[in-house]
Amino acid sequence: MNAPVNLSALEVGFDVPALPGMDAADIQTPALVLDLDALERNICKMGDYAKAHGMRHRVHGKMHKSVDVAQLQVTLGGACGVCCQKVSEAEVFARGGITDVLVSNQVRDAAKIDRLARLPKLGARTLCCVDDIDNVADLSAAAQRHGTEVECLVEIDCGAGRCGVTTTADVVAIARAIDVSSGLKFAGLQAYQGAMQHLDSYEDRKAKIDVAIDMVRDAVDGLEAIGLDCDIVGGGGTGSYYFESNSGVYNELQCGSYAFMDADYGRILDADGTRIDRGEWENAFFILTQVMSHAKADKAIVDAGLKAQSVDSGLPVVYGRTDVEYIKCSDEHGVVADPEGVLTVGDKLHLVPGHCDPTANVHDWYVGVRGGKVEAVWPISARGKAF
Amino acid sequence: MNAPVNLSALEVGFDVPALPGMDAADIQTPALVLDLDALERNICKMGDYAKAHGMRHRVHGKMHKSVDVAQLQVTLGGACGVCCQKVSEAEVFARGGITDVLVSNQVRDAAKIDRLARLPKLGARTLCCVDDIDNVADLSAAAQRHGTEVECLVEIDCGAGRCGVTTTADVVAIARAIDVSSGLKFAGLQAYQGAMQHLDSYEDRKAKIDVAIDMVRDAVDGLEAIGLDCDIVGGGGTGSYYFESNSGVYNELQCGSYAFMDADYGRILDADGTRIDRGEWENAFFILTQVMSHAKADKAIVDAGLKAQSVDSGLPVVYGRTDVEYIKCSDEHGVVADPEGVLTVGDKLHLVPGHCDPTANVHDWYVGVRGGKVEAVWPISARGKAF
Repeated sequence: MNAPVNLSALEVGFDVPALPGMDAADIQTPALVLDLDALERNICKMGDYAKAHGMRHRVHGKMHKSVDVAQLQVTLGGACGVCCQKVSEAEVFARGGITDVLVSNQVRDAAKIDRLARLPKLGARTLCCVDDIDNVADLSAAAQRHGTEVECLVEIDCGAGRCGVTTTADVVAIARAIDVSSGLKFAGLQAYQGAMQHLDSYEDRKAKIDVAIDMVRDAVDGLEAIGLDCDIVGGGGTGSYYFESNSGVYNELQCGSYAFMDADYGRILDADGTRIDRGEWENAFFILTQVMSHAKADKAIVDAGLKAQSVDSGLPVVYGRTDVEYIKCSDEHGVVADPEGVLTVGDKLHLVPGHCDPTANVHDWYVGVRGGKVEAVWPISARGKAF
Repeated sequence: MNAPVNLSALEVGFDVPALPGMDAADIQTPALVLDLDALERNICKMGDYAKAHGMRHRVHGKMHKSVDVAQLQVTLGGACGVCCQKVSEAEVFARGGITDVLVSNQVRDAAKIDRLARLPKLGARTLCCVDDIDNVADLSAAAQRHGTEVECLVEIDCGAGRCGVTTTADVVAIARAIDVSSGLKFAGLQAYQGAMQHLDSYEDRKAKIDVAIDMVRDAVDGLEAIGLDCDIVGGGGTGSYYFESNSGVYNELQCGSYAFMDADYGRILDADGTRIDRGEWENAFFILTQVMSHAKADKAIVDAGLKAQSVDSGLPVVYGRTDVEYIKCSDEHGVVADPEGVLTVGDKLHLVPGHCDPTANVHDWYVGVRGGKVEAVWPISARGKAF
């Protein structure tokens, strides 16, 4: 049997949940809604913090996957550019006018390396990470083939347990190989401690990041000893940026979730023991959902299930309500406990998703709301860009 | 601040992971790969079963969200049509030429009801479920407004704990209201027991479905008593279809996952105590992923994380391998334990995802492979259709 691409089936259009100017009450559900006032306050606050601490802020575009949000972070928050995790994401940000783009990840596949090396032609400073000396020759060949320059950070695994080398000797060896390779420029270090960001206790997070800072300082010293300076020493997330900012060794932050907030991050505690979503950052990111069945007196069924969010970090929380609770998630349904029967069919709820990044990745649009009106409808421009 | 839709940011194109005719070895990762031989065998096997048992099979389109897969199920598997969970999905299937489409869910929002009532104009018999007598007038008004007919099933909650009524009295009252409403036609019952499908033990599943069958039989009898026949008594999933088929009361199956299989369904046991993915159904659906870092001797880092799958039902399983194990999933990375160091950067693995439905929903394309070659590249045409 031969089954070629069926053009008649190319029904890959988008359902737009709202249009600018519309009343927020008319947004189709489920939809991702951004509180633009809260979003802008979060962006400005982090921008002011970075500036006051002499840090560049390279915002993490993998979180929102949106050129529009990234541009807001540059304009309002003074971000120097973005980092993202895939070459296909980097292409979207470069095409969207972001002029400084780091793929904060390893790029090993030949086709991906080729695409990466073409990115500077779009006008973007282009950077990637390296954790294996065998990668250097491939990156160099691609950059030379396209007549471009790719800047490389050596990635240190400072506790996340994913990519990255673990010794200064390895850092130095890879950095030296980058430094002598045509088409490449050694630009510094990538050292993001991803595993500690969600530890609840401030002190537990500090203990983990202190280890990371020591590793990074040792690597910077080792590089200095062979005459290599680090233009970038990058890392830091929403659960740690104050540690990197005060380390004396990092100079670039890579925060993402601060702009939107989510239920899982919101639970971690600041130095005073306060949840970070009760003061440090505002919830700006919601799944708008609607009650579609209330056939059982104590349960409302809403239209946001697993196709409207990721539950890898726990169930969503109903925002601003203590009388109802989202207790179960299946493919297309959410079960909301409604013990007092306060909800009726058609009611809408704002859910704070457990984890913002993979939740954004299942939607096509952000609906930006201010003062009860839809002000912006932004495509999630890098959604599904997983290559 | 005014932030209109930024047209320059409309970078919502697709990265196609492969082209027909290409070697399977050249597929870009992460990608969803279908083993077309296995898929077709699964489809034919279920089609033959349904036919032999005098059942119609209305395949569940929410699982794969693909017009092309649905058409294969009609052509090869004799499916009578599809069910799906959202009106926006139903539109895709109707536009794609499926002529019998059930929204096996409640449709309550005014805009959604209006869209549903327009569906018959695309040439599709259009059905939806009802669990609240207050919904009947809205559906009737919309069908009359568009001069169409919407067929309605009364939904029974026979154990899933989501939508649906729980007494024959409620079934009868709603059915009678549908029957006398212009623009609507009473078509029967929807009674899918979703909560038992993933119970490991065959006997445990049977016990749950026996309760459901008794409820459904009582409702059918109650309807007969007032002169209403059920054209459709629908339900049944991959973990239960043999029970419904032998019940003497159901006449339509609604299986989805049998066609693809996944790790969570695969673990349930058939009547002989054999895992259903070791005989009953074949794994036809894989996430193809690639090793992108092996900086630590005992761990390979692959490029399929939370953006390439849903882990709501557990981590993916590396297909056909016992020497390596996918042990951790973060946004963009998978950690594969490789205690003997058998993997190297660039190696590709086939992952069987924990849960097929929400995993399909994060990708844009199925890459159909046969004999080592890419034969088909099918859009996941209803991906993101959550309205």
